[in-house]
Amino acid sequence: MLIVMRQDASQKQVEDVIKAVEARDCKARPIPGGDRVSIAILFNKQALDETWFQELPGVKQAIPVTRPYKLVSRETRPEGTRIQVGNVTIGNGRMVIIAGPCAVESEIQAMTIAKSVKEAGGDMFRGGAFKPRTSPYSFQGLGEEGLKILAKVREEFDLPVVTEVMDLACFDMVEEYADVIQIGTRNMQNFSLLRRAGQAEKPVFLKRGMSATVDEWLMAAEYIMAEGNSNVILCERGVRTFVRHSRNTLDLSAVPVVQRESHLPIIVDPSHAAGFRDQVIPLARSAAAVSANGIMIEVHNEPEKAMSDGVQSLYPEQFELLCRQIRAIEKILKDY
Amino acid sequence: MLIVMRQDASQKQVEDVIKAVEARDCKARPIPGGDRVSIAILFNKQALDETWFQELPGVKQAIPVTRPYKLVSRETRPEGTRIQVGNVTIGNGRMVIIAGPCAVESEIQAMTIAKSVKEAGGDMFRGGAFKPRTSPYSFQGLGEEGLKILAKVREEFDLPVVTEVMDLACFDMVEEYADVIQIGTRNMQNFSLLRRAGQAEKPVFLKRGMSATVDEWLMAAEYIMAEGNSNVILCERGVRTFVRHSRNTLDLSAVPVVQRESHLPIIVDPSHAAGFRDQVIPLARSAAAVSANGIMIEVHNEPEKAMSDGVQSLYPEQFELLCRQIRAIEKILKDY
Amino acid sequence: MLIVMRQDASQKQVEDVIKAVEARDCKARPIPGGDRVSIAILFNKQALDETWFQELPGVKQAIPVTRPYKLVSRETRPEGTRIQVGNVTIGNGRMVIIAGPCAVESEIQAMTIAKSVKEAGGDMFRGGAFKPRTSPYSFQGLGEEGLKILAKVREEFDLPVVTEVMDLACFDMVEEYADVIQIGTRNMQNFSLLRRAGQAEKPVFLKRGMSATVDEWLMAAEYIMAEGNSNVILCERGVRTFVRHSRNTLDLSAVPVVQRESHLPIIVDPSHAAGFRDQVIPLARSAAAVSANGIMIEVHNEPEKAMSDGVQSLYPEQFELLCRQIRAIEKILKDY
Amino acid sequence: MLIVMRQDASQKQVEDVIKAVEARDCKARPIPGGDRVSIAILFNKQALDETWFQELPGVKQAIPVTRPYKLVSRETRPEGTRIQVGNVTIGNGRMVIIAGPCAVESEIQAMTIAKSVKEAGGDMFRGGAFKPRTSPYSFQGLGEEGLKILAKVREEFDLPVVTEVMDLACFDMVEEYADVIQIGTRNMQNFSLLRRAGQAEKPVFLKRGMSATVDEWLMAAEYIMAEGNSNVILCERGVRTFVRHSRNTLDLSAVPVVQRESHLPIIVDPSHAAGFRDQVIPLARSAAAVSANGIMIEVHNEPEKAMSDGVQSLYPEQFELLCRQIRAIEKILKDY
Repeated sequence: MLIVMRQDASQKQVEDVIKAVEARDCKARPIPGGDRVSIAILFNKQALDETWFQELPGVKQAIPVTRPYKLVSRETRPEGTRIQVGNVTIGNGRMVIIAGPCAVESEIQAMTIAKSVKEAGGDMFRGGAFKPRTSPYSFQGLGEEGLKILAKVREEFDLPVVTEVMDLACFDMVEEYADVIQIGTRNMQNFSLLRRAGQAEKPVFLKRGMSATVDEWLMAAEYIMAEGNSNVILCERGVRTFVRHSRNTLDLSAVPVVQRESHLPIIVDPSHAAGFRDQVIPLARSAAAVSANGIMIEVHNEPEKAMSDGVQSLYPEQFELLCRQIRAIEKILKDY
Repeated sequence: MLIVMRQDASQKQVEDVIKAVEARDCKARPIPGGDRVSIAILFNKQALDETWFQELPGVKQAIPVTRPYKLVSRETRPEGTRIQVGNVTIGNGRMVIIAGPCAVESEIQAMTIAKSVKEAGGDMFRGGAFKPRTSPYSFQGLGEEGLKILAKVREEFDLPVVTEVMDLACFDMVEEYADVIQIGTRNMQNFSLLRRAGQAEKPVFLKRGMSATVDEWLMAAEYIMAEGNSNVILCERGVRTFVRHSRNTLDLSAVPVVQRESHLPIIVDPSHAAGFRDQVIPLARSAAAVSANGIMIEVHNEPEKAMSDGVQSLYPEQFELLCRQIRAIEKILKDY
Repeated sequence: MLIVMRQDASQKQVEDVIKAVEARDCKARPIPGGDRVSIAILFNKQALDETWFQELPGVKQAIPVTRPYKLVSRETRPEGTRIQVGNVTIGNGRMVIIAGPCAVESEIQAMTIAKSVKEAGGDMFRGGAFKPRTSPYSFQGLGEEGLKILAKVREEFDLPVVTEVMDLACFDMVEEYADVIQIGTRNMQNFSLLRRAGQAEKPVFLKRGMSATVDEWLMAAEYIMAEGNSNVILCERGVRTFVRHSRNTLDLSAVPVVQRESHLPIIVDPSHAAGFRDQVIPLARSAAAVSANGIMIEVHNEPEKAMSDGVQSLYPEQFELLCRQIRAIEKILKDY
Repeated sequence: MLIVMRQDASQKQVEDVIKAVEARDCKARPIPGGDRVSIAILFNKQALDETWFQELPGVKQAIPVTRPYKLVSRETRPEGTRIQVGNVTIGNGRMVIIAGPCAVESEIQAMTIAKSVKEAGGDMFRGGAFKPRTSPYSFQGLGEEGLKILAKVREEFDLPVVTEVMDLACFDMVEEYADVIQIGTRNMQNFSLLRRAGQAEKPVFLKRGMSATVDEWLMAAEYIMAEGNSNVILCERGVRTFVRHSRNTLDLSAVPVVQRESHLPIIVDPSHAAGFRDQVIPLARSAAAVSANGIMIEVHNEPEKAMSDGVQSLYPEQFELLCRQIRAIEKILKDY
């Protein structure tokens, strides 16, 4: 942290700030400049809170310098993390394509879609059994029945399954059936859920909060890693902005930023970002071109009858074409 | 809902949309205009999803017309809801002042602050026993010990207490000790927690999510009311924007909007919105002037030593002056 | 500026950064810490660009420390600026109330509204002769005819007038008629216009850009001051956010921030922030309670027939009541 | 427009709204539904302002239905616009690559970079002679000298040049030298400048405003087209959001949305969106994959010495590799 003093700060005020820093068990080094003095805080063992110093007399501003996360940082682990899920590896250089419906609606629906996903070259299957819905009156998912259907999908098509966990109460159940446990955007800072996920044996798929900074998102992953689970997959799914032509704004620059700051793999979900099918397809190609570690797409055999998110779900034939485009883009990135 | 057809939509496409509407058990009324046809959807018994129609052939746009919430709507209950907490009434025209530290740190800290709050004319006491923190390495609250201290505060100073519940696991415990159960901004769409809160006997204090629209916020309250608990207090605490000079941007226009749309009382928390003490004081006065049903303020006897949020906590003497200003503004609003 | 090196930066990389700093005519002071070295840049005579250093080998981040503005800074001029406009002083502790229609539509309209404004205790009159409109097909203002009407208002009611200038072509004309020259939100970074305003004899009313940070806004004022015109009045009018229930989100925390950072007076325009009459009234009271130096309000005698912004314009009797509330709030702020 | 009445609106209020609609020369058709009446407005010849009706007694909401733009709409001109600039065509299916430095700094700098751009397969050259800068103390461009250098670039390398015009005063001069006249993000709603551009003989390159909706952006293009200039090229360059890891957030979904709504070509500028070189490269590939009509990139031979935007400028060898990747992605989009 760097503390910038006001131009008119007195020598006494500078000394008092130094004492306040030392009271927190750190070293303070004053740096006299042309106009004013700044004070660098060094050798801090724990995260410092800029608010501790910001309003001391004579202080103009306290500026954090180092990042607050540790375990998730690439400085801690320079090579990227690879996560094994069944016979799929996430983070090994090959893009992972995860696809399926928003919600599992029936066995026949899930099986039909899974068949299309498998045939088009998808690597994993997604589908919600517990659905977080804005309205209490909307379809909330099939619950355990949905999880059982997912287990059948895995068996039948050899596709590992990703599904969302919504609370502590159903965590054990989801953990039993899923290959990868998803924590949704609305739960990104549900810290109790993060801790529980940190104790799980399965990899965790952590969606970015709707208005989370990359730092906050990585700190949420830090919660999981701090409990002992290092298999965290990050998922960019768009953030909330003033823009109204799409459901959210896909923040693709988060991909290179996360890849520089952290060793964890990052996947892009263009379906929830766009919210409309005709935007999903070009955005999915963009996600491939930005070198994400994978892509998650909503696909439905009859989108116009889907119980949720139909308008953003691709038709199977659209998905099939998209997969070929993604693989071709992936090849370009390797060849050049 | 209103479905707007493209200029070049065929008669057949219009008829197909009408059939799709009727398949959802609604009436469809086509409205031919100068350039194009629109189709009004009438007599819908349940919430419609615009995505069901948006991508049918010939459709340009589907526009939702009525609001998705029911129980929280002022149309359902034109007079405002009054909520009784001990001998304090929220929503009866008198502004309720809720104050206390961010976190309960010790009995002596809580008692000292509570004494100041009571003497300054505060109506209720706030303080966290379970703290949601961005970093897993930050102070996480005293847990049940903190709740016990809050119970002592209530007994000693006759101040009802508001405290946050973070998950299902500690809900019963918080419900036992608290007078009002707070659901924090990060949990506004933790739907499992909302349902549990809907089954509680105590009033619920529902903070607005960091980037929630008023509609989403009211739908979160709808979750609580749908389970049977009508005592919901809304709390505006600032939203995330591009602005960097304050922690969040206080959205005061939400107050008249909520008061028009809903019968639930709304309280303003300028402390979390501002994030800095010198902004909290003027914003608290603003919240009074905007005619909120109450104000929640962080106060600390030694803010510079606080374990969290010290920089936004007022000194007791600042709070005392602020209370007098708030009461004077309240009087103006009644007199004119 | 503070340059933070990577943990693994070599001694050579540190030395190269020091050379790069010295090549910009500044002093570089390395500060070795526990994990990494930082380098403070001192004695810079001009604004530094963090991008000069950010991508040098071994650099993790370059963090600006001091603010980029000079003339507008309160550090340059600790007492606040007072601006005299006719017999009205802005910045002397008394809140200035500026009111009038969005656009001057006719002499009778302007005169009728001005009479109401004067009688209600307004200090200045506002009204557009040149209107920036999103659509080329909307009413664009009366031009010089509008300015002449404003001059009559001033003469008849002894109310100084504020009106907007849209471009260099009409600047001389506006300057001739207006008492205060307004630069609108869409022109906040029209640097040619700012420079011209800096050469004007009249005070300038600088609205905040729709998504401008306070720093950018103060830099726009710096453009005006750098040309020699020190009479700049800042106006907060709401910023663009994800919020949809109001036209913009009024950022009231900008008021204490500007008052701390700069010596220039700051006025609040709740009409454009809210966009709806029933929000304007409570927000206007909030602006008074936050201790702004003044308030600008749209008033119209027949809002439902207004050629622009009718829905946010107050009826004269609403304005009259509001003025009394504002004066009462002002008195409280002085008394306490 | 659709006017939604309150549930409790009286028959008289409905009739008064109908009269208000007819007073605006439109037809009103009431649509009685289950809960409430709505009123459709038909046969409007001009843009309607929802605010005209929104606050009439009994009205709950007025909802705009059709888009406000005409000339720029794809409904007016279903096939896409092609714009010829020298021997380059924009909008014919081939991606146009525009590259060059942020600012023209000297003849040798411009020539050196132009040579790299040409050799790498760039189609057009960009470079600022007049620079809009946040600070009045920053480098403001070489002015006419810069324009003359651009003319030499064109002559020497047969590359059409794009350069920014900042105000009416220098418009004629820029028009004389440039092949394409750029209107920058801060001037997107400088309506006087848009009108002047509408009278120009040269194509106009219209950058999206920093917080402009697509509707506002298209309305800005409508200003240009309404004056007679149909050769407008739109440029997405990132919007302002809460995100801090990039300078702006690139809104790639704007590309398919603009391509659906309008016949005008759209180009993506990842350099200003990202603000950092290591983000520019993947975002540029994304822009190709989203099927934009072209890409604009900042390139500099010595970015670390650039007078502006050095940190976001690519090295020539990075640009050369990027061009090959973009062409390969373009080929995929054609082949599938």
